[in-house]
Amino acid sequence: MENKIILAHGSGGKLSHDLVKNTFLSRLDNPWLAKLDDSAVVDIEGKVAFTTDSYVVSPIFFPGGDIGRLAVCGTVNDLSMSGARPLYLSLSLIIEEGLPLADLEKIVVSIQKTADEAGVKVVAGDTKVVQHGTADKLFINTSGIGVIAARVDISGANARPGDAIIINGPIGDHGIAVMSQREGLRFSSQLESDCAPLNNLVADMLAACRDIRCLRDPTRGGLATTLNELAGQSEVGMEIYEGNVPVRPAVRAMCEILGLDPVHVANEGKLVAVVPAGDAERVLAMMKRNRYGAESAIIGQVTAEHPGRVVMKTRLNTSRIISMLVGDLLPRIC
Amino acid sequence: MENKIILAHGSGGKLSHDLVKNTFLSRLDNPWLAKLDDSAVVDIEGKVAFTTDSYVVSPIFFPGGDIGRLAVCGTVNDLSMSGARPLYLSLSLIIEEGLPLADLEKIVVSIQKTADEAGVKVVAGDTKVVQHGTADKLFINTSGIGVIAARVDISGANARPGDAIIINGPIGDHGIAVMSQREGLRFSSQLESDCAPLNNLVADMLAACRDIRCLRDPTRGGLATTLNELAGQSEVGMEIYEGNVPVRPAVRAMCEILGLDPVHVANEGKLVAVVPAGDAERVLAMMKRNRYGAESAIIGQVTAEHPGRVVMKTRLNTSRIISMLVGDLLPRIC
Repeated sequence: MENKIILAHGSGGKLSHDLVKNTFLSRLDNPWLAKLDDSAVVDIEGKVAFTTDSYVVSPIFFPGGDIGRLAVCGTVNDLSMSGARPLYLSLSLIIEEGLPLADLEKIVVSIQKTADEAGVKVVAGDTKVVQHGTADKLFINTSGIGVIAARVDISGANARPGDAIIINGPIGDHGIAVMSQREGLRFSSQLESDCAPLNNLVADMLAACRDIRCLRDPTRGGLATTLNELAGQSEVGMEIYEGNVPVRPAVRAMCEILGLDPVHVANEGKLVAVVPAGDAERVLAMMKRNRYGAESAIIGQVTAEHPGRVVMKTRLNTSRIISMLVGDLLPRIC
Repeated sequence: MENKIILAHGSGGKLSHDLVKNTFLSRLDNPWLAKLDDSAVVDIEGKVAFTTDSYVVSPIFFPGGDIGRLAVCGTVNDLSMSGARPLYLSLSLIIEEGLPLADLEKIVVSIQKTADEAGVKVVAGDTKVVQHGTADKLFINTSGIGVIAARVDISGANARPGDAIIINGPIGDHGIAVMSQREGLRFSSQLESDCAPLNNLVADMLAACRDIRCLRDPTRGGLATTLNELAGQSEVGMEIYEGNVPVRPAVRAMCEILGLDPVHVANEGKLVAVVPAGDAERVLAMMKRNRYGAESAIIGQVTAEHPGRVVMKTRLNTSRIISMLVGDLLPRIC
């Protein structure tokens, strides 16, 4: 019993305080958390980006990451996609009674490592515990705030005809890596999730070009859904060259077996950038020098034709419309 | 099927977008949410308070409130307890497949009404859907940011010997109201949760006295846990007069039947304030004019003796030590 989470860990009383002190504060140590007040108080000035995401990935440990790394990366990336420099995260856990304390500790360590890598601080937190059978091991919410530099104006509504569309590497790794661990589907694979914090990559890109129009991370719904969102918000068309979209052979093979299209499979360390055509090569060269952009590629362009639609030019030189994900491809992928 | 949440509502694809548009944007309409970018961008200056909480209350509708009102009040109150003026909230939902869409809509309406009452905007959101049996209907995370006025310095560590301890009304209403609805315990009761946003009350209090030392909302763990936290953080003792602590007769009766001490039962519209003795009557008078402070009372004082301990002077003029909640009183009360 001592090695598992019990309901009293979520009571708000003595055991909650012990858990916070022994499991969280010992690892996520910083002056904001240590104060144990109702809110963290931080100094910020200017345009502030604010975002939230809950993570329900199953299983909570997967090749290339875990729910903790995912929760930090996801929120760091959402802030980065607004052109913000991520600064502070909150961390809220819903734990199913019975979770081994060792699993929780491994995840807190992973959170700390990923936060260190991204240069963000976890400044506020909350823990709830629910009865066995009323959650699935662990759900994590991270919210985050960051600051946006002057002159940066990134939005899904800013794409213009002629702009280039860039991705920072092969698509579908996260979805297939998590899928490979699922009950009934377990298959051996060298494939790892691409789960990574992209804020430093975005900082490099902004150093190369202040006029980046759109940034978005193609997570749930995959590249296809993200491109459709951008085309819709900006009221433009998009043309993608299938031959330019990087996909690892293992992902392509698994997608064929499972009947999936890689453009609909989730990523957790990818971003789509829309940049003025004249800046595209400079941004691309800068991206390739970053560890999370080595396999970056220009995959298409923004068009005035067919606003709201994304068209894929295939290797056979035919065209097909790429739609948003419809239905439910891979539940609990993030 | 059309009237229930299905997994595809959380896919990130077409059905997710429809849900956001039809259920969330139609009610929580504001320019930040409407942009549908990865982060909300807001203008803020100065000391920023940042907080998070996940809500797992069961049942999701209870006398005097629901999980939506609770989620807004809880985070508004956490910000208020730092002396901040709450401005922006994020809203992240984990929905169990099969939740009636009508229930979700009722809760979104309740969120909007409560946010309006508190004068805050829901500017960022996220929705995940998990398989039936892997969550319990609905969990909500709200995070929030607010600004702290110059010269306000409120912290759990600021109580000083001689200070007065004030509460804004009777304790235990929320815990007993939720309890009254539980499986196997259902009893008829006129009692309602005290769930309320306290930011306007705090603004009134700060107008009466800038030097408020500590504010804290006695939620999980109740008044006793909050007082112990403050005594510990400030390294002071506290003396509470039992006869001065307001408790409704219905709450007292239910606590006796259930073997609970009202000082350990959760509240969702209460705050404990520690204020300089000389300002106590002025603050109290101001509180009594607010709808959420009509039954406010001075319940005790801060002492130099027995640092870290809270002592209750009973009606019989004996003393007993009031400890933090130990064990698990009422799981999923918030």
